[in-house]
Amino acid sequence: MTGSITIALDAMGGDDGPRTVIGGAAIALHRRPDMRFVMFGEEAAVRPLLDAHPEVDKASTFHHCDITVRMDDKPSQALRRGRRHSSMWKAIEAVKTGEADVCVSAGNTGALMAMAKVCLHTLADIDRPAIAAIWPTMRGESVVLDVGATIGADSKLLVDFAVMGGAMVRALYGIERPTVGLLNIGVEEVKGLEEVRAAGRMMREHDMKSIDYRGFVEGDDVGRGTVDVVVTEGFSGNIALKMAEGTARQIGEYLRSAMRRTWMSRLGYLLARSAFEHLREKMDPSNSNGGIFLGLNGIVIKSHGGTDADGFASAVELGYDMVRSSLLQKIVNDLNRFHTSDVPAVPAEQ
Amino acid sequence: MTGSITIALDAMGGDDGPRTVIGGAAIALHRRPDMRFVMFGEEAAVRPLLDAHPEVDKASTFHHCDITVRMDDKPSQALRRGRRHSSMWKAIEAVKTGEADVCVSAGNTGALMAMAKVCLHTLADIDRPAIAAIWPTMRGESVVLDVGATIGADSKLLVDFAVMGGAMVRALYGIERPTVGLLNIGVEEVKGLEEVRAAGRMMREHDMKSIDYRGFVEGDDVGRGTVDVVVTEGFSGNIALKMAEGTARQIGEYLRSAMRRTWMSRLGYLLARSAFEHLREKMDPSNSNGGIFLGLNGIVIKSHGGTDADGFASAVELGYDMVRSSLLQKIVNDLNRFHTSDVPAVPAEQ
Repeated sequence: MTGSITIALDAMGGDDGPRTVIGGAAIALHRRPDMRFVMFGEEAAVRPLLDAHPEVDKASTFHHCDITVRMDDKPSQALRRGRRHSSMWKAIEAVKTGEADVCVSAGNTGALMAMAKVCLHTLADIDRPAIAAIWPTMRGESVVLDVGATIGADSKLLVDFAVMGGAMVRALYGIERPTVGLLNIGVEEVKGLEEVRAAGRMMREHDMKSIDYRGFVEGDDVGRGTVDVVVTEGFSGNIALKMAEGTARQIGEYLRSAMRRTWMSRLGYLLARSAFEHLREKMDPSNSNGGIFLGLNGIVIKSHGGTDADGFASAVELGYDMVRSSLLQKIVNDLNRFHTSDVPAVPAEQ
Repeated sequence: MTGSITIALDAMGGDDGPRTVIGGAAIALHRRPDMRFVMFGEEAAVRPLLDAHPEVDKASTFHHCDITVRMDDKPSQALRRGRRHSSMWKAIEAVKTGEADVCVSAGNTGALMAMAKVCLHTLADIDRPAIAAIWPTMRGESVVLDVGATIGADSKLLVDFAVMGGAMVRALYGIERPTVGLLNIGVEEVKGLEEVRAAGRMMREHDMKSIDYRGFVEGDDVGRGTVDVVVTEGFSGNIALKMAEGTARQIGEYLRSAMRRTWMSRLGYLLARSAFEHLREKMDPSNSNGGIFLGLNGIVIKSHGGTDADGFASAVELGYDMVRSSLLQKIVNDLNRFHTSDVPAVPAEQ
């Protein structure tokens, strides 16, 4: 793909709304100058910010929308109130019409997913979409999906998640045949959920061309970076994600209070300040901010609602990079390759 | 309960076997001198260690067992080979016969749970047992269950877990009516697993005397210590536990490498060394080592297989404290109180 890339932005999404979105767009534009924006939101709120960032204004087409989806709207409410007319819907729709290549919103996750499903529909072979997260690991980064779109995926859907996650790793990091693990409890054959075991048998029996299936992984393998793609259904995946975030915050808190204990430790902290800043950066969620909705006819990126402009910029750049490396085309190709080859029936357990 | 407390020890359990067990027993005995042990294991391996720790020897009755359950035995294998004659079985059986008050083993979790179920049976009102973990939080400690005994609990079982977890918090910390949360994704009513929602409705409608039900909690609430007891089924619970362990290890790794970056940070590290040691102690899993099997006619404590003598001592002391505070009796009473009162049918969803 050459030429400029257009990002559809829901200017009203996020706890802090337009200020974070326009500020983030400015940062992203500075780093990827051939980016363009289609922006949707309330003119009164957005216009002054565009005036304050003329470079963003110049790269943008702005459309006024009366309706803003609230952060606490239930998905059904959001659809009722905001279908066709909200800034969120319009940003998604811009991907459908081809006006934009990718949509980024920091709005309410449930509403965004519900609208994305209604507006874009799922890909032909996919029953339900997934949210993929980019996970910092000891080895680099992995992709974990689903972190909260579906509850209780069957074995076929788990295999589709594996294929889509593999395509995403290929698009992001250029790894030709990414390694894949199924999140389970215990690595022995006998353990874990039946759907997970069946998905494992399917991938082992089937000659998976686009991915290298490595078996079951456990919760502590995620941070270790044992595999490039970790596949799970959305209930456990969401708990895993929140648990990792919570633990990181908890340890940060311990660390801060430990460093304040004595004057020696305070002095040590001052001397080691650059190291702590390096650590903070590594642990900063805004560096890998953004869940990617996979399995739809279009790419939608969900940025954390509570992010700042830097975090929003990461989400925008992630969207840009995904389009640049033809993520959607890769997913469609891999799914086709998988679904048109001889998919064996799930073999009976020994 | 007064008088001495007797702990049944599977001397062969754990990656490091008798050395860790006897070493841990020595540490625990030093801190709780009225403790006694019934110990089961291979005489040739255990005897020299007892000779080296005469104070443990004096407090122990030792029984030789030919058979040792291996760390990689599948539960079914372990039962076939080790039922009635292994050190693991014998240690559990000592609780059944009344020779001991509680059993502690660092052996293979699956085998220990399988044997405990066969030997001790579940309590009258409980369909399946749970493994409870003591979780360090920003506020202190919480109890999380189930972290891996059951896969897919129904709503009734989740409520029983809540009652048992509440009894455990009362026994451990003397909190009269512990707060309880159900682990879910999103705190809105509409979200999450049906069984979890049904369990929430049951607890809200029912006048729960022994616990204070506070609604849904998310993964990041666990480390925050939002509630005293976090209830979940074992698949998500195990993933949550492993995820927290993995994240802690990952951040520890980041921290170590950050501190080695420059000579200034190395110097800072030296000055702040006591703070780092304090932090390490806070993050050390051996300080809260041990899963507690709940829902059986007897208390069984599972220590980490890879723990050292200090960690094993914590598990032994946990067992001691549980007996001292009549955990089993509290569980039985609370379950009775709950099951004999009017349990409403699960109300239909609005």
